[in-house]
Amino acid sequence: MHVMIIGAAGMVGRKLTARLVADGALGGQPLSALSLIDVVQPDAPDGFAGTLVRQAADLSSPGVAEALATARPDAIFHLAAIVSGEAEADFDKGYLINLDGTRFLFDAIRAEGGRAPYNPRVVFTSSIAIFGAPFPPAISDDYHHTPQTSYGTQKAICELLLADYSRRGIFDGVGIRLPTICVRPGAPNKAASGFFSNILREPLVGLPAILPVPDTVRHWHASPRSAVGFLLHAATLDTAPLAQRRNLSMPGLSATVAEQIEALRRVAGQKAVDLIKVQPDETIGKIVAGWPENFDPQRAIALGFTAETTFDEIIQVHIDDELGGSL
Amino acid sequence: MHVMIIGAAGMVGRKLTARLVADGALGGQPLSALSLIDVVQPDAPDGFAGTLVRQAADLSSPGVAEALATARPDAIFHLAAIVSGEAEADFDKGYLINLDGTRFLFDAIRAEGGRAPYNPRVVFTSSIAIFGAPFPPAISDDYHHTPQTSYGTQKAICELLLADYSRRGIFDGVGIRLPTICVRPGAPNKAASGFFSNILREPLVGLPAILPVPDTVRHWHASPRSAVGFLLHAATLDTAPLAQRRNLSMPGLSATVAEQIEALRRVAGQKAVDLIKVQPDETIGKIVAGWPENFDPQRAIALGFTAETTFDEIIQVHIDDELGGSL
Repeated sequence: MHVMIIGAAGMVGRKLTARLVADGALGGQPLSALSLIDVVQPDAPDGFAGTLVRQAADLSSPGVAEALATARPDAIFHLAAIVSGEAEADFDKGYLINLDGTRFLFDAIRAEGGRAPYNPRVVFTSSIAIFGAPFPPAISDDYHHTPQTSYGTQKAICELLLADYSRRGIFDGVGIRLPTICVRPGAPNKAASGFFSNILREPLVGLPAILPVPDTVRHWHASPRSAVGFLLHAATLDTAPLAQRRNLSMPGLSATVAEQIEALRRVAGQKAVDLIKVQPDETIGKIVAGWPENFDPQRAIALGFTAETTFDEIIQVHIDDELGGSL
Repeated sequence: MHVMIIGAAGMVGRKLTARLVADGALGGQPLSALSLIDVVQPDAPDGFAGTLVRQAADLSSPGVAEALATARPDAIFHLAAIVSGEAEADFDKGYLINLDGTRFLFDAIRAEGGRAPYNPRVVFTSSIAIFGAPFPPAISDDYHHTPQTSYGTQKAICELLLADYSRRGIFDGVGIRLPTICVRPGAPNKAASGFFSNILREPLVGLPAILPVPDTVRHWHASPRSAVGFLLHAATLDTAPLAQRRNLSMPGLSATVAEQIEALRRVAGQKAVDLIKVQPDETIGKIVAGWPENFDPQRAIALGFTAETTFDEIIQVHIDDELGGSL
């Protein structure tokens, strides 16, 4: 089993790599080769004895996708993208990387299949950004796709391509719409969604954090560990029940900021909560007001995708995976 | 007012041209210039005294879109596409013409706007093919887009681009999802949907027609005259109420084949109905089984789009517009 991860140097890509190496297999097939691709060369994982390729390459550059497909991986995780804020600020770069890069990959797989039979599993990370307000109380699996950012538009287009190329038998694709990943490890960043993680991650290690929105804000969350679980399940599930609906909203946890903070209090005490400083930011407030609050992802749940059901669990995952298991 | 029609040589394009020339205006603005574009040179309309350009050009060829945008039309009707069957048979041609051609046009408008302020109304003809079975009893305005053809995929992608480019202020776009156009004038063609028109148009002039599906088949229809009405209304309506949801399912008439035949009997008598020969075609039956049967297009109706409400009306429109007003 040869697995390729495009976007392997990112947070989810690194966790996926580590999990694959730890498992030593995907879907019961021994992991013999691993190709890690990103715009910067991904780090080598510890303890992998198979064939390892680590490559700095930009999928949107001419010839890159074709060269990757020539290696004929059995499973391809396509996680590479520029984020929402950057795709909004740089129109051309967003469409080039998030749309054209993906289409180049899909077309390269098609060309490879034209030389000799080839039908890899392709797992594509889409986003809840394909949905746009106004929303129903919970977004159902058959709710329409009206993104309000170029990033969401690009993800929605790639979903359509993935479904059509799969229908055509060019590859066996599954698109998964990730919730906001929380608690995101690492330093605070300037993403509009950063505070959802900051207000937990920083106080857990005794550092202050800023809350820029009212604690009544509700959002849709899953842990990094769940995200990796979604990817692995998407790579190994039987796609026959998907029929021609290849894109799935993933399960998650709908919670208000107040509920996040209550969970923090239960896990780490009032002293942790006291480190959260309320400092309203109108710009962030406006952006967040357009985001989905809740989903009813019945199809994904029926297909066996699972996520956390309380914020206490989400915090515990962070403590286990990032802080060595205890505070 | 300079109006450009891309795809002007097609059935709807010719009727739209004739109507614009007859009206002499669009949205109260006198029609001073008309640019008619298609892959074959469109015919000159009768009685137009303004500046007329008729050009054979392929939007998907390098430089064509840029040249068209340089003329800075105030309103652009983009009707050009290859049909469903051809897009399914020729993967590359379908994506090139139906997706890339549209994107070239949108990007050319953006480039033109970069030289000097420019924000034309763009009316794009999408299709009910963006929806895929299984369906609810009536497809609501917020039902998801899961096309089951490459044609439907390409139309759905162009809808997403139109909405994002409009949100960005690159142009002022409206996408309209046309019902199946019935009664389609001209000779019977081999499109899978052809029989919906054939079983009316041919008997009305004393010719036989073949019905390849059971008369219980239900489908979604509007006349060519309604299609032109949709286009003109989309070109002139206030787009502010659309907000970021720029694509609309058009109104139409949900009817079974049996209801079509009953209307034919009322309008043209039993002798016309007797010219319909039932000759089941399994291939056509399978294709049609995946098509939408009914819609609940509340937004379009609220915005003032109108269509026929009985098949008697649809037949009368054909008699008026194609047969000189009487049988």
